[in-house]
Amino acid sequence: MPVPDAVAAAMRQTNDLFNIEVGSKRNIAALDKIYTIDARILPPGTPMVEGRDNIKAFWSQAIAGMDVKSVTLTSVDADFSGDSVVELGRAEIATNSGHTVAVKYVVHWKQEDGLWKWHTDIWNLNQ
Amino acid sequence: MPVPDAVAAAMRQTNDLFNIEVGSKRNIAALDKIYTIDARILPPGTPMVEGRDNIKAFWSQAIAGMDVKSVTLTSVDADFSGDSVVELGRAEIATNSGHTVAVKYVVHWKQEDGLWKWHTDIWNLNQ
Repeated sequence: MPVPDAVAAAMRQTNDLFNIEVGSKRNIAALDKIYTIDARILPPGTPMVEGRDNIKAFWSQAIAGMDVKSVTLTSVDADFSGDSVVELGRAEIATNSGHTVAVKYVVHWKQEDGLWKWHTDIWNLNQ
Repeated sequence: MPVPDAVAAAMRQTNDLFNIEVGSKRNIAALDKIYTIDARILPPGTPMVEGRDNIKAFWSQAIAGMDVKSVTLTSVDADFSGDSVVELGRAEIATNSGHTVAVKYVVHWKQEDGLWKWHTDIWNLNQ
């Protein structure tokens, strides 16, 4: 069913936090407000990473390794069901060397500490 | 919350159908019982594919192109919420040329026509 307005607004806040704090400012501590404590990410090219601390280590390395300049997440569809949301979206990752990578993703959202956060996060590349 | 036993059994049936009918027998028509009519798949290396007919065309080409011998889906975790389930799993794809590909996936399940089906399906490779 459609996502209630208040939940959609909270989700935008979380996605903006990732774009600005993590993608642009490399503020890895902001991931505390983005991922649940027991979140899982499923990145291409490596096994699943479990738990927020390990996820922070992953992003710290990945953002430095790719020399990310900015990230832009765009929500394409979101489905509200019970106490969670399944969101489907796309991301553009721009690097300081001038490359742009087109990514698509699915995020399973849950509420934690009054925030809507990413509980399961999987993505891959369009090309 | 945990997946009710009856739903878990229905999910196993759907996954087995994919393993046996699609992975081993290349019976693409079986996808009618696996994907919802308006399902979306997000395969690595290509944009999102929308709608069951397009998904059938995708799998027909992909299974022939990779010369798939067998597929084994293994459910790792599943979370029941409202009228849907989010499942996290791994897949092993074996080809007739003797290669094995390790895949991880997230599937958003919904009920359609009394069956539990894949509504959103995204995966990527471990290596």
